[in-house]
Amino acid sequence: MTNVRPPNLSDARFSQALRELTSIVGAPNVQTSADRLSDYADPFTPQPMARAFAASAVVLPGSADEIREVLAIARAYRLPLWPVSTGRNFAYGGGAPRLTGSVVLDLRRMNRILEVDETLAYALVEPGVTYFDLYSYLRGRDSHLWIDPAAAGWGSVIGNTLERGFGYTAYGDHAAHQCGMEVMLASGELVRTGMGAIEIGRAWQLYKAGFGPSYDTMFMQSNFGIVTKMGLWLMPRPDAYLIAHVKLPREGDLDAAVETLRPLKLDETIRNHAVIEGAIRHAAGVSARSDWYDGAGPLPDSVVDEIVARLDIGRWNVHFAIYGEPNLVEARFAIARRAFARLPGARIEANRYGPHTEPAGGGEGNMAGIPAMSAFRMLDWRGGTGAHVDFSPICPFKGGDAMRQYSVAKARLAEYGFDYYGGFTAGERHLHHIVATIFDRTDPKQTDAAADLQRVLMSDARSEGYGVYRTHLATMDFAASQYDFNDGVLLRMSETIKDALDPDGILAPGKSGVWPRVWRGRRGDI
Amino acid sequence: MTNVRPPNLSDARFSQALRELTSIVGAPNVQTSADRLSDYADPFTPQPMARAFAASAVVLPGSADEIREVLAIARAYRLPLWPVSTGRNFAYGGGAPRLTGSVVLDLRRMNRILEVDETLAYALVEPGVTYFDLYSYLRGRDSHLWIDPAAAGWGSVIGNTLERGFGYTAYGDHAAHQCGMEVMLASGELVRTGMGAIEIGRAWQLYKAGFGPSYDTMFMQSNFGIVTKMGLWLMPRPDAYLIAHVKLPREGDLDAAVETLRPLKLDETIRNHAVIEGAIRHAAGVSARSDWYDGAGPLPDSVVDEIVARLDIGRWNVHFAIYGEPNLVEARFAIARRAFARLPGARIEANRYGPHTEPAGGGEGNMAGIPAMSAFRMLDWRGGTGAHVDFSPICPFKGGDAMRQYSVAKARLAEYGFDYYGGFTAGERHLHHIVATIFDRTDPKQTDAAADLQRVLMSDARSEGYGVYRTHLATMDFAASQYDFNDGVLLRMSETIKDALDPDGILAPGKSGVWPRVWRGRRGDI
Repeated sequence: MTNVRPPNLSDARFSQALRELTSIVGAPNVQTSADRLSDYADPFTPQPMARAFAASAVVLPGSADEIREVLAIARAYRLPLWPVSTGRNFAYGGGAPRLTGSVVLDLRRMNRILEVDETLAYALVEPGVTYFDLYSYLRGRDSHLWIDPAAAGWGSVIGNTLERGFGYTAYGDHAAHQCGMEVMLASGELVRTGMGAIEIGRAWQLYKAGFGPSYDTMFMQSNFGIVTKMGLWLMPRPDAYLIAHVKLPREGDLDAAVETLRPLKLDETIRNHAVIEGAIRHAAGVSARSDWYDGAGPLPDSVVDEIVARLDIGRWNVHFAIYGEPNLVEARFAIARRAFARLPGARIEANRYGPHTEPAGGGEGNMAGIPAMSAFRMLDWRGGTGAHVDFSPICPFKGGDAMRQYSVAKARLAEYGFDYYGGFTAGERHLHHIVATIFDRTDPKQTDAAADLQRVLMSDARSEGYGVYRTHLATMDFAASQYDFNDGVLLRMSETIKDALDPDGILAPGKSGVWPRVWRGRRGDI
Repeated sequence: MTNVRPPNLSDARFSQALRELTSIVGAPNVQTSADRLSDYADPFTPQPMARAFAASAVVLPGSADEIREVLAIARAYRLPLWPVSTGRNFAYGGGAPRLTGSVVLDLRRMNRILEVDETLAYALVEPGVTYFDLYSYLRGRDSHLWIDPAAAGWGSVIGNTLERGFGYTAYGDHAAHQCGMEVMLASGELVRTGMGAIEIGRAWQLYKAGFGPSYDTMFMQSNFGIVTKMGLWLMPRPDAYLIAHVKLPREGDLDAAVETLRPLKLDETIRNHAVIEGAIRHAAGVSARSDWYDGAGPLPDSVVDEIVARLDIGRWNVHFAIYGEPNLVEARFAIARRAFARLPGARIEANRYGPHTEPAGGGEGNMAGIPAMSAFRMLDWRGGTGAHVDFSPICPFKGGDAMRQYSVAKARLAEYGFDYYGGFTAGERHLHHIVATIFDRTDPKQTDAAADLQRVLMSDARSEGYGVYRTHLATMDFAASQYDFNDGVLLRMSETIKDALDPDGILAPGKSGVWPRVWRGRRGDI
């Protein structure tokens, strides 16, 4: 037995609940050893916080029927559950629960690829299916469909989509390419959204809305239900594609990069989730910080300039892809190249791939639908036991906004002793600005500073009118409190719906700042 | 005073409620005369049904603050309200309420275009803004942005989007191009969704989801709140565009048309909401039925063939548009033309427009972002006082499904004495199949047959696994009951949320089959 238990249960009651859970899923699928539970602690959570987000047990159901029985037990005991698809929500909490003592409900055993339709270009998957799994499955069948991988290929397709993660191809907006869900409510009732409610389900993965109010987006970043199946659209493999890299020499070029990219996105010259990454993020893929500098505090600008020169990269680096029939690819690239060539000092390269060639992997691989784990190279940047926590504000797709977010964050990171490790990923009218605070977990000073910094970054952003799209367990309440129009009515509406759908408050208390009535007093507790 | 009143109020109580409403919005904005109320009866509703959907009064608030006070009165009296943006939901009920005796809350006075952002290509509008209004506003400012009009340009932008209407350009999926809402709940609380909850709202119209559960789609085809502001994305005016027409000679060519169009949509050669319309729909734009035939029953196939020959159209007619830089437009058209040219007997024409030319209007105008009322020409097809009611199943984007839906509907229409007047509009992986039953309202036999037919068409579809995306007031309960997976749990979830957000049941009882607790006994009543 572990030393953490659900806050509302005695040891005896908790033991009794675990015995009942074991009778449903079997002994190997109820785990309480400290060793196994440690797998569910986010390895990136700064240590002092990790104790605040400790699981009391892990239950791994094998089917929706088992989940239903687990829910019945949870309702009877008022046992808080923390459902995860596979628990790889790294930098935002991993598999750890918001409310300490919750039981993690890990769905990784439910890992079937239920359907792939080559004609209509979609898949239907269970929560345990990872990007690697789906990729291998399609490759093994010589499918003409691509996946759009998340940054880390080991992540769950459902998990990433529900957290509104994003990728790199033209299907990079994962939430936008989701179509149809099966969701189990806290009551144990199984709902199919959209056209899935037409029983034989001809159009479940084809048309999102169905008839009447539509709910899929309500189950994202949410604790209103457990998603047990999800449809996603897959991109047909293009005849040819080109991956372009633009190197821009000056720090201030971010503004022009954004201003140049926006019209190319809006007129659909560039359809993929193009990326504008800072020099350090680029450098961290191929080197360690200690290769360049061993002083205290953030890298001086002069060192960043040296990195840029020695690695022959840009101070900002734009990466984009164009897919399609070869002539069209070239014609669209000509337009994009002309636009970027106007920027002083811009250097533009492109690699072309065809039906029988593809990138070796890494960043280009992601833009070609090939999942990888290369994003984790960043962990070696700072040395020691690398970890990171991400600050992820939404940025209007304008150069001035990007520069403002960048400048404020860079200065604040420097104040806390960190480098600006970040970049912007292009949606249609917004940019996802992702700033990773990289720290050595074995260094308590760095770790504490990294933790403190996150709220400061979020406050800075809020005061300029920006909000985050996603955040770590430790800052979920803080983020939710920033979405405070009209005295926080949005969150109150969420909690009204929460109480209606989950009156016992068993599903993921505190997720995204939404607390069920029975646990509402815990808001803000860490 | 009219002869209809809310079913739960005495004449005296209702009069008292109206006096209180008048004190809020002013006497001219509370209307009860039979003459004014008749404007809110759907002119297309078959007469016997019209009495079942009669408004007791119309209230026209001028602001969100007035709506809040109206809601307080409605809660106090348990007065059912039927909010409409402008009430032009023709063929699905117009401005008429589902529950007879409801007070129509008509938002047409709230008709400000609050913001147009030329750089980020969006608008923020109030419910009373029509497609004509927004179009005129943009033209008057020499905007470089297009609208995507609904079939009838007089419709409300918000109203059409909330009903999940669609248009003809690359932004034809109106719900998909909506971003950010302001919604007043039954409580009078004003919610802003997505990034709008960040008070100064920099990204409200730029990123849909915000943080945590996201709700915009839950307020579509819904009675959970009153949408008072809505953002929508606008398409940048293309350098050039081409509108193509493919005429296919045989009835069976529908299959090949769909099979040809699908890969062109999936690989993004064609990005607009292409249309495949049947010969009669095409003919109704330029002629009347009596020009061709005056026998009883549906047009014989031989007459349809004669129409096709004489008008030099196809038995099926595909219309699509390609937008962009002139060379790209031609390159993409070459691909599409090659594909359609493979179909035996296909004839392909294209009209090209540039920065200084545009279509004269009508069907081509819609594909160029120009709103029109030409869709109403169909009303003259049958003669007498023309009306129509629409059967609108979602069709998988496959030739076999389209042929099946077409054949079953055509046979059933013929059985009831109607022509197949229909077509398919192309989404990404589905088709909106729209079948209009056109009837003469002054002919009781036609009118009754048209009404009876709708449920039969829906039952036919359901037995093949198809469901409708939208339906008339008279069949909302019937449609909702078809979405019956797991004993109708989706509808039960909707009603759980409804009761939580609107415990007094004042907002649009029965909308999309969702009934609040206090009116649930009315389900199925007409």
